[in-house]
Amino acid sequence: MPIIDSATGSVSRDYTIEQLQQRADEMRVWNTLSLVAAGSGHLGGTLSIMDIAAALYLKHIHHDPKAPDWEDRDRVFWSVGHKAPALYVALAMAGYFDDRPVSYHGEPLQGFEGVSGLEQTVLLRRLGSGFEGHPNRLKLQGLEASSGSLGQGLGIACGSALHARMAGKDYTCYCIMGDGEHDEGSVWESVMFAAHHRLDNVVVIIDDNGMQIDGRADDVMHKHLLAEKYTAFDWKVIRCDGHDMADILRALAEADAVEGQPAVIIAATVKGKGAPFAEDVVAYHGLIPKDGRSGGESLETVIAHLGLEEVFPPERIDRLLGIVERYQAEVDRRVDALVPKFPRDYWWNSADDMQVKMDATRNGFGDALADLGCEDDVCALGADITSSIRMDRFYKPDGKTDDPERLKRFFSCGIAEATMTTVAAGLAKEGRVPFGGSYGVFSTGRNWDQLRTTIAYNQFPVKMADAHGGISVGPDGATHQSLEEISLITILPNFIMGVPADSVQTEKVTRAVAIRPEPAVIRYAREATPVVTTADTPFEFGVANVIRFRQAASQFIDAFEQVLAPDYTDESEDLTIAACGPMVPEAMRAAYILKQEFGIETRVLDVHTVKPLDEASIVRAALETGVVVTAEEHQVGGFGNLVAGAICRGCLGRPVRVAMIGVQDKFGDSGQPWELVKSFGLTAEHIAARAKELLG
Amino acid sequence: MPIIDSATGSVSRDYTIEQLQQRADEMRVWNTLSLVAAGSGHLGGTLSIMDIAAALYLKHIHHDPKAPDWEDRDRVFWSVGHKAPALYVALAMAGYFDDRPVSYHGEPLQGFEGVSGLEQTVLLRRLGSGFEGHPNRLKLQGLEASSGSLGQGLGIACGSALHARMAGKDYTCYCIMGDGEHDEGSVWESVMFAAHHRLDNVVVIIDDNGMQIDGRADDVMHKHLLAEKYTAFDWKVIRCDGHDMADILRALAEADAVEGQPAVIIAATVKGKGAPFAEDVVAYHGLIPKDGRSGGESLETVIAHLGLEEVFPPERIDRLLGIVERYQAEVDRRVDALVPKFPRDYWWNSADDMQVKMDATRNGFGDALADLGCEDDVCALGADITSSIRMDRFYKPDGKTDDPERLKRFFSCGIAEATMTTVAAGLAKEGRVPFGGSYGVFSTGRNWDQLRTTIAYNQFPVKMADAHGGISVGPDGATHQSLEEISLITILPNFIMGVPADSVQTEKVTRAVAIRPEPAVIRYAREATPVVTTADTPFEFGVANVIRFRQAASQFIDAFEQVLAPDYTDESEDLTIAACGPMVPEAMRAAYILKQEFGIETRVLDVHTVKPLDEASIVRAALETGVVVTAEEHQVGGFGNLVAGAICRGCLGRPVRVAMIGVQDKFGDSGQPWELVKSFGLTAEHIAARAKELLG
Repeated sequence: MPIIDSATGSVSRDYTIEQLQQRADEMRVWNTLSLVAAGSGHLGGTLSIMDIAAALYLKHIHHDPKAPDWEDRDRVFWSVGHKAPALYVALAMAGYFDDRPVSYHGEPLQGFEGVSGLEQTVLLRRLGSGFEGHPNRLKLQGLEASSGSLGQGLGIACGSALHARMAGKDYTCYCIMGDGEHDEGSVWESVMFAAHHRLDNVVVIIDDNGMQIDGRADDVMHKHLLAEKYTAFDWKVIRCDGHDMADILRALAEADAVEGQPAVIIAATVKGKGAPFAEDVVAYHGLIPKDGRSGGESLETVIAHLGLEEVFPPERIDRLLGIVERYQAEVDRRVDALVPKFPRDYWWNSADDMQVKMDATRNGFGDALADLGCEDDVCALGADITSSIRMDRFYKPDGKTDDPERLKRFFSCGIAEATMTTVAAGLAKEGRVPFGGSYGVFSTGRNWDQLRTTIAYNQFPVKMADAHGGISVGPDGATHQSLEEISLITILPNFIMGVPADSVQTEKVTRAVAIRPEPAVIRYAREATPVVTTADTPFEFGVANVIRFRQAASQFIDAFEQVLAPDYTDESEDLTIAACGPMVPEAMRAAYILKQEFGIETRVLDVHTVKPLDEASIVRAALETGVVVTAEEHQVGGFGNLVAGAICRGCLGRPVRVAMIGVQDKFGDSGQPWELVKSFGLTAEHIAARAKELLG
Repeated sequence: MPIIDSATGSVSRDYTIEQLQQRADEMRVWNTLSLVAAGSGHLGGTLSIMDIAAALYLKHIHHDPKAPDWEDRDRVFWSVGHKAPALYVALAMAGYFDDRPVSYHGEPLQGFEGVSGLEQTVLLRRLGSGFEGHPNRLKLQGLEASSGSLGQGLGIACGSALHARMAGKDYTCYCIMGDGEHDEGSVWESVMFAAHHRLDNVVVIIDDNGMQIDGRADDVMHKHLLAEKYTAFDWKVIRCDGHDMADILRALAEADAVEGQPAVIIAATVKGKGAPFAEDVVAYHGLIPKDGRSGGESLETVIAHLGLEEVFPPERIDRLLGIVERYQAEVDRRVDALVPKFPRDYWWNSADDMQVKMDATRNGFGDALADLGCEDDVCALGADITSSIRMDRFYKPDGKTDDPERLKRFFSCGIAEATMTTVAAGLAKEGRVPFGGSYGVFSTGRNWDQLRTTIAYNQFPVKMADAHGGISVGPDGATHQSLEEISLITILPNFIMGVPADSVQTEKVTRAVAIRPEPAVIRYAREATPVVTTADTPFEFGVANVIRFRQAASQFIDAFEQVLAPDYTDESEDLTIAACGPMVPEAMRAAYILKQEFGIETRVLDVHTVKPLDEASIVRAALETGVVVTAEEHQVGGFGNLVAGAICRGCLGRPVRVAMIGVQDKFGDSGQPWELVKSFGLTAEHIAARAKELLG
């Protein structure tokens, strides 16, 4: 059924096979353009799914882009949220955004009149555009569900299908999944559910491109026998060539006709299809064309390869990228307005003095692991994000070459965080020191019950990397920005947890927990943040540091004195800022601002260990300064309330004024890391302004 | 390989097939006896696995009960923790506890000399005995891992197997699983992992008794095709008769010989085997013989059926139950000593006045659901614990008869909380009002990432029952006593959460969240707790109640005045007790004690809504009374730190003294609910003593 007018049931638009193929290729260009414009995103999987996306949205499904919520429409659930750009161009091509103005957080922007829905897809991953890194159903019409954490879409599709059955509706629920996604156990739960309830109005489409982040799917985690697995789970299995439009439509028709059981279409695809340099190249999972707009591996190459130079002449691309530029200028203006102003600009490296180096905290983890791997008992477990979180340094200690002996102590788990956790437990039980890790959402949340029962309760000393923590993850968006881990982990008995301030401290924390007998979580970030400690900075796991601004210096780091909190002598400062993680550099900068602008003296507490919490140093600082501002790149209170609890219990009868800086009980967003830090009120300027307010 | 002496390699003990069969039957009696003595436990599954347990521990595995940590031993991982009693009797029969004295929390007790290891198994589920409801590896030798949350054992076994491979050891890792357990997606993750890494030193044994809590496994969730599934996942499948000793041993030998892939033994068994009244009876999953020691469905019937009257004459049973009685007297004495003493005994219903009715909060949930089910859009999803958490009232509104129309709106998910959550999301997306639920550990933790991404981020208004919350779950032990949910859920944007004080309020909270647009969690308990509110007690979701003790009365409930906090006029009380859930009745009783004993006036805040938190009423109480004690049946701080945060941020410059009552950062334990409440310091007496101390 092609695109229809839901009011009359008549066909609004239809395409021949040839036209569909042409459209699919145009969509490939739009998709590639959006990634190039965004500067990040997933090229491989968005191109492999594109013919299927065109077949669905332009030809097969029963839907009306003018009435996105029409209740009889077929539903398409994109369980693979990282393929969002393909979804956006498919919806746009079908006409979903025809009447949508260019908007910033839902507010239509002036000066962008005449920019079509399709053209708006170039705003991919820009703050406030709606075209987030992973789909947010509340931001754009036509999205059935927000997704990004794999293995959840099929369950939603099943729920929607149950509704259809109860309500006597005959829509179909399609669910687009990846082959690598089938590593997740929750997929198999939902596969069972659909079979058990005989949901023949559910059709799964697997974009079987054979690759995932860490490598070929069969090398990462047992991908083969997918058809046999589905058959054993009582599904009807249909195969097709995912790049042959007629074959895709044949398979879809066949799947719709299946009765009494759900159907799965296993579509053989090529990752990166249409971008010759990316086809079947593992590295192009999460990359954009490395040469950008022009050059060998570029947008232009894709356009030329697809023979679409006439549709996408350079001047059109110029115009489209111009839209992005103007949009970004508007974003910059609005974001800047959110940051409290002081007479001087104190932003990082904005002046000649107080210069700071930037480095990603994850590098500190990698450096530690490269070294810890010398010990025979240390092992590492990968969850298909090994290199990005720098765990690959375990088996690549020099950063380049695989060490064969260490590879024997590295175990690929695929996208299966629950099992990564329990396998690590088994290794720890036998005396090994296993490191696991993934995005924080997945390595502390997805596997929370495993952390609780198998790790904490058993007291198996597994070390878990809570990587890519915080909103500074950036354009991937909220699903991948973990903001809850301090609460998830500190509430668990027997765990210890470090939230280091910079890359140097991340290395120290990693080494410290490696030799401790407890299970541990280390939270660190993805993007580069200021380096504010050195190898010589005092450090003791479980003991906070006091950091005092002394005087402006050429190097930011030299402007501060840092001592272990118990070694510090009270200087009757005006306030304390208790911070953890990348908020420590912001707290230091806030101390600098407060001193320079108002003569206010600040005791910064670097609380790099959130469990066990150094309550004594916190209580002492609260008693001695009487004012405490907490700062966390986390849902506010996760850390702040730990500090508040310590103060309340410890400062009996002494008044202490407290304010908390953090994310205000809302999810993150797609945008550049520093844009988000500013938008969510997490800068030194925000801390300083709040502190000033509190001090009156 | 039979039981050996690990020092010499010589056989210590061996059995013929006939002897093994005899031992297995004796173990059935010990097992049944322990359940009868405990008064709770799982008869069905412990009897179905018993022949396999005997085959493993008395004949097949390579181990030395005198050297439980011998590093070359074969490992047996019991992924099905609820079969712990069978594990205990198997270990005991093999000689693991021969030298173990009867102990209370590890301290040998006097007066129990001469009680053998096997005899000690009658102390099952008793506080401090070590024989917990689910295995705790830190409490007894021979337990490879603590378990209780299903679907985690195989991963641990794989980790242990990887160690063997790296260390060049040839031990085998056996993993005992249930057929119903295969509903859990994490099982299939681990199944993939073992196949991918070709772990031929892993052998899974499935106790395929065909039943789970909610019914026959095939009715609950698609159990059939288990062999086909394993084959498709690249395992070697071996079948056997799980009650034919020779066949079990044949299958084990066959499994050991498999090379290059892991092996699974699917053992056909009969649930309740050996207890004629329980054989193949679904209800006997989680029950003990209903007539206890004697009668139709009793221990005596089992003994007679197995022809073991001579081994277990009544006087032997008398003596064994006498051990239990003496042990319990010791427990009572020690637990009682932990409770602060006052001149009078204020315990529940210990006096003629201040009488209180007891009812389980879960009943309030069931009552609400029975009524809410009248609405066509309300649905319910079961996770194989439907009746116990009172969700069955949805389709059984009168408590007895299934309503066929409502059954169409009830969906069995099996033990698959992740998928229960995402399916509920799909229903909510289509305008339905879906209720899901399970033990709190599983319905807020196991599925946490699904709650975060698919529910909270999508803003799908799913209503989740966090049932059996708190240590008062009792003898099941720590794995099933959720103490973290307030932290897990309140840190999530868009969620609301109620922690009602009693069964009446649970009904109100359930009704209140049903009509709210947000996703919601309702935390309630399993065992009966005091009913301290009535239908007429003021209630508004999101608004705390003030409860004031006025004067002792015949009925406890009549001694208090209860008003919405904003309607309350300050009486300059001496302190505030802010409590939630079943700690509210304790807080009320503490207020009574404080007034009677010391003339202290207490403002009790019933904070039944923890998100959104009624910060205004908390801050006002803190400002007006200056002293706040928080009380939660939860890891301390989960609730207390929320209160502390509100106080710190709200009471600028006003000193407030705070203390927190809760579980002190440790896991729960097996024991009777009230024993645990006392042991973990959660009684009114503890609150009153702490308050008095704080007031000086």
